[in-house]
Amino acid sequence: MNFASDNTAGVAPEIMAALNDANKGFTLGYGNDDGTRRAERRIGEVFKRDVAAFFVTTGTACNALAIAHFTPPWGAVLCHHDAHIMTDECGAPEFFGNGIKLVGLPGDGGKIAPSVLKAALEKPQWGAPHHVVPQVLSLSQATEAGTIYQPSEIRELADIAHAHNVVVHMDGARLGNALARMNAAPDDATWKAGVDVLSFGATKGGAMAAEAIVFFDKERAAGFDRRRKRGGHLLSKHRFVSVQMEAYLAGDLWLRLARHANGMADRLGDRLTAAGMPPIWKVEANEVFALIPRAACDRLKSKGAAFYERLPDNLPASATVAPDSVKVRLVTSFATTTAEVDEFVSVASA
Amino acid sequence: MNFASDNTAGVAPEIMAALNDANKGFTLGYGNDDGTRRAERRIGEVFKRDVAAFFVTTGTACNALAIAHFTPPWGAVLCHHDAHIMTDECGAPEFFGNGIKLVGLPGDGGKIAPSVLKAALEKPQWGAPHHVVPQVLSLSQATEAGTIYQPSEIRELADIAHAHNVVVHMDGARLGNALARMNAAPDDATWKAGVDVLSFGATKGGAMAAEAIVFFDKERAAGFDRRRKRGGHLLSKHRFVSVQMEAYLAGDLWLRLARHANGMADRLGDRLTAAGMPPIWKVEANEVFALIPRAACDRLKSKGAAFYERLPDNLPASATVAPDSVKVRLVTSFATTTAEVDEFVSVASA
Amino acid sequence: MNFASDNTAGVAPEIMAALNDANKGFTLGYGNDDGTRRAERRIGEVFKRDVAAFFVTTGTACNALAIAHFTPPWGAVLCHHDAHIMTDECGAPEFFGNGIKLVGLPGDGGKIAPSVLKAALEKPQWGAPHHVVPQVLSLSQATEAGTIYQPSEIRELADIAHAHNVVVHMDGARLGNALARMNAAPDDATWKAGVDVLSFGATKGGAMAAEAIVFFDKERAAGFDRRRKRGGHLLSKHRFVSVQMEAYLAGDLWLRLARHANGMADRLGDRLTAAGMPPIWKVEANEVFALIPRAACDRLKSKGAAFYERLPDNLPASATVAPDSVKVRLVTSFATTTAEVDEFVSVASA
Amino acid sequence: MNFASDNTAGVAPEIMAALNDANKGFTLGYGNDDGTRRAERRIGEVFKRDVAAFFVTTGTACNALAIAHFTPPWGAVLCHHDAHIMTDECGAPEFFGNGIKLVGLPGDGGKIAPSVLKAALEKPQWGAPHHVVPQVLSLSQATEAGTIYQPSEIRELADIAHAHNVVVHMDGARLGNALARMNAAPDDATWKAGVDVLSFGATKGGAMAAEAIVFFDKERAAGFDRRRKRGGHLLSKHRFVSVQMEAYLAGDLWLRLARHANGMADRLGDRLTAAGMPPIWKVEANEVFALIPRAACDRLKSKGAAFYERLPDNLPASATVAPDSVKVRLVTSFATTTAEVDEFVSVASA
Repeated sequence: MNFASDNTAGVAPEIMAALNDANKGFTLGYGNDDGTRRAERRIGEVFKRDVAAFFVTTGTACNALAIAHFTPPWGAVLCHHDAHIMTDECGAPEFFGNGIKLVGLPGDGGKIAPSVLKAALEKPQWGAPHHVVPQVLSLSQATEAGTIYQPSEIRELADIAHAHNVVVHMDGARLGNALARMNAAPDDATWKAGVDVLSFGATKGGAMAAEAIVFFDKERAAGFDRRRKRGGHLLSKHRFVSVQMEAYLAGDLWLRLARHANGMADRLGDRLTAAGMPPIWKVEANEVFALIPRAACDRLKSKGAAFYERLPDNLPASATVAPDSVKVRLVTSFATTTAEVDEFVSVASA
Repeated sequence: MNFASDNTAGVAPEIMAALNDANKGFTLGYGNDDGTRRAERRIGEVFKRDVAAFFVTTGTACNALAIAHFTPPWGAVLCHHDAHIMTDECGAPEFFGNGIKLVGLPGDGGKIAPSVLKAALEKPQWGAPHHVVPQVLSLSQATEAGTIYQPSEIRELADIAHAHNVVVHMDGARLGNALARMNAAPDDATWKAGVDVLSFGATKGGAMAAEAIVFFDKERAAGFDRRRKRGGHLLSKHRFVSVQMEAYLAGDLWLRLARHANGMADRLGDRLTAAGMPPIWKVEANEVFALIPRAACDRLKSKGAAFYERLPDNLPASATVAPDSVKVRLVTSFATTTAEVDEFVSVASA
Repeated sequence: MNFASDNTAGVAPEIMAALNDANKGFTLGYGNDDGTRRAERRIGEVFKRDVAAFFVTTGTACNALAIAHFTPPWGAVLCHHDAHIMTDECGAPEFFGNGIKLVGLPGDGGKIAPSVLKAALEKPQWGAPHHVVPQVLSLSQATEAGTIYQPSEIRELADIAHAHNVVVHMDGARLGNALARMNAAPDDATWKAGVDVLSFGATKGGAMAAEAIVFFDKERAAGFDRRRKRGGHLLSKHRFVSVQMEAYLAGDLWLRLARHANGMADRLGDRLTAAGMPPIWKVEANEVFALIPRAACDRLKSKGAAFYERLPDNLPASATVAPDSVKVRLVTSFATTTAEVDEFVSVASA
Repeated sequence: MNFASDNTAGVAPEIMAALNDANKGFTLGYGNDDGTRRAERRIGEVFKRDVAAFFVTTGTACNALAIAHFTPPWGAVLCHHDAHIMTDECGAPEFFGNGIKLVGLPGDGGKIAPSVLKAALEKPQWGAPHHVVPQVLSLSQATEAGTIYQPSEIRELADIAHAHNVVVHMDGARLGNALARMNAAPDDATWKAGVDVLSFGATKGGAMAAEAIVFFDKERAAGFDRRRKRGGHLLSKHRFVSVQMEAYLAGDLWLRLARHANGMADRLGDRLTAAGMPPIWKVEANEVFALIPRAACDRLKSKGAAFYERLPDNLPASATVAPDSVKVRLVTSFATTTAEVDEFVSVASA
């Protein structure tokens, strides 16, 4: 019963097989190999656009490098105040951006509302050059609350951002889960909706360690190869990161894996609801948040269930928190089984 | 015939097998797994000391993080002027160190002489606070010229450094090759000789992407976990980097792989000597530098041999460069075969 | 009628005279002159402690250098969300601190309450190394709302901070105003109350451009001379910054100047109250905030009055904002005259 | 007898008078005053071009901010290996440039030869993105050896730089001395010769603390106001820096002051020659370097003469260094008197 994170799972068999296959003979390092070119092209096909893609091994690197590339040091990055870049990356965007400032915006269910974004961008200040300038809007898809932005919602936010010369970045660590849920085409939910640069994650979805910074406008990638290198993020035996991405995208494996994870989250949500512990937010990706009794929580842990408690400070206005209840985050993955889900709810409601 | 770099080889079979084995079940991410603890302990056993070790996926990250940890922003790092950190990392140490300065020292065969180090550290300057302060000495083992430092040589340099409160860092991207050659114990050639922090590379030696920053004094690692994280260098599915290191060190695999690579370099050097193209510097690790006729170079390339030409600006005083000769760097690896070596020399001398 | 800022005033005559006097003969640059030593000693006498003091020409430099000196890159700085370092320095602390994070805390009247600080420091997070670590608490004295912290209040906050290994910084751009109001001894209101490092401003108080970073524990200043130099903040003709501080402190000039400014703020507050436009917050230093009718605001501007409007988003809960009213900030200085004050209120209430 | 530096002198009387005059009434801070606009316009008139100029108080800030503005973090700055930015600014350019790399070029008499620049820019490297990219050429005028670049020499270097997309920066801490010597028009010796951005120093020339970053192409200054602010280099009582520059340029005061300093250097050079201690390099600005007997050096110091000794490691090939001789740097200023010069040589040759 491991619901601690989607990164507690291993590597999807198809991707592991591809890694083994790639281990043949010699190839030039640092991305100068055919496999890397194939992987980049494949991303272009998936997103129906000629893109520039750069592979790295962590989502933090992906986000921080992408954001730094579009933000001068005196720039500000607007994001949800619970965004991963804001709370869980130990200041990586600020480090890569030479002291940029992240500005957290409030919003129910992990999502930024257009009115909130608009107000933030139109807030008068007493005068330049004393203030940082909003330069990037970062949207998490799916969000930290397990919810998702519909393409039309992204469009609306992106239009506001662009009207203020603000670049739109998407933290797509769980993009597959969002797309699988919406049945949306990758292009429709990204650049056609106004996304300028994407952190495209494969690790949480089933890869070993593979993420891509995807520039939908290739021109804007100028200099990025050196930025990645001096961040220590250019792998020498680079074929082994590219091949993961290639396998992840082959035959829509990524969407199949995401659909499985989403399905497990649905099942978990449904069973918890039936057991009187309904999800706090609509289950839209592969995360379920719920308030469960402390006793249930203890019982689960004693049975070896792995999951994280979260502070109950971030809840919908309508939520009523029973005394002795605990807010928990439950994450499913490509490797989650129905047996695990069922056992979890069974123990919780015992 | 691939002599372009040791990173053009793939992954040693034993390490690939370990990666496959590790792909079972769930484990906590970010290094909170048993395998990571085992790998760290194993490093301690190899070096006969209780160490703090942090795993990353590139040598550049390894060096830059280690150096930044010991250098305040106004510090200087002394290294050979051909050191990898000086010439090939696109300013990564300067980036991670918030604008530290690298000072390149001259030296034959890629090695820094004690007298040169002493002079650099004792150079009078007109006054603080106008000048940066030497803070770290970085030694490459093996060097960029394929030579190695004997433990006694390291000791002498380290004593000079320590007398000036300068920390000793070793860039051990090819440490295995150096140790295998010297038949030296890992402890004797590192911390017992005065090395304070080590970039311990496994990638070039046969891993997929695995390097460790090794602190021989655990106390000095305080804060390093956050430094790595904000550099984007903490893998989420961390078990897959740890297991590479574990397999690399198991049963002295690393030394066996290094001995093979060194042996291939010896063979290459011997055959080139026999063919009238003797190595420029003594072959001490897995790199051979030679001056070969331009025609031989062209012939080799036309046969598909992969290797890099280098500028002839860095040669021993005694070297005589024939017109139309080319300086080449030839790197062997665990995967190099005698057939490749023999074919290379045969084509070169045809 | 200039109430735009205390920096719209010129230089107090006593300080200008000292600058003229200092312009005699040759002295060594960069602070190696007797005058600089005298000025540093004088600060020690004022604060009744042997201090290390470093002079710079802007308050932003003062704050950013001081904060960076105590904050590793992965550190967080807690401050009021309206603090000058948070809103008006264009990211200087983040720049000097290599990407540190500023965390704004709420609080009425520009002040941080002990309970708020405690909650911020005790907030559980799911785990290192994913989060930045609080490292510095920065208190503004006087605050951006023109209020002040009593020594006992500083003591309470500092005790909480120190219990969490958090250093206490004071942004004392208007320290003179606060001390003059409280009739508190400089030592009682700073290091004896727990302040570790002080940005001691003279510019707003009447100097031309002179601020000091004051370390109450000299040991902790190690390396700061180089930090200042590489920030470009070490003046070559250094005597001209030192002499301003010396003159500012001579014969308690600074407190006399501050008392005048405070008195003008009192008069302004009293007259505005009498005219039905009472200050929003208690007038404790040399700033008055008030809600005035739009018509009054326009009338004042047409008469050449200089002052800034502020967003009405930051008000006491008890405040009732009449339609068409404007929140204004009025700052007095050593150079403000009673005539100006009286004319301002007269025009405002006409 | 103070020849330690031109910054050991005080402030020229005309500039001190202007500072006193500026101390009247209220003006807006942060450069929003008429005097600042006048000073910027005056620079434009002097250089016969519409420029963007930003005032700061130190030369280090001036250089570091200007260079950082044109150099991405992975950029390299080419300069003479004895340049002030290389040796005397404690890493300020690296800090402001987020870890850029300074590459020192050799050259007699502090000057870079076109062939040396060309070779540096055309040096082949094994491949992007492993290496930093030359982005700025920084020329010191006058140089650290007291020599100067003729406009035609600047032109030749700038053409080479521009052909490689390298921006030309001039460190003009002693530009007045160079122009006065050459009788060259400011425009001819700067932008018309290819200089893109200028650090225009007034402090060494006679101001208290006033330097300007001058962009000859105003478009390229975009964002610079925020860069300066977050560096802590925007003065609040800004009129007091502007007025120094205005007075410095009024009626060609700056050139008169420089001519005096140069004349004193000439006299010093001539007398030293007559006394058998000829200058090492041609005296072209206000610095004289000479080899003098240790005994003379000691005698001078015992008489209170102030000057710096320098390492004898940087000498023309033709120089013969007598045993027991000392290399000294002697700097004259607007305040140097003939009596001081004569006494210095008299004591030296006694």
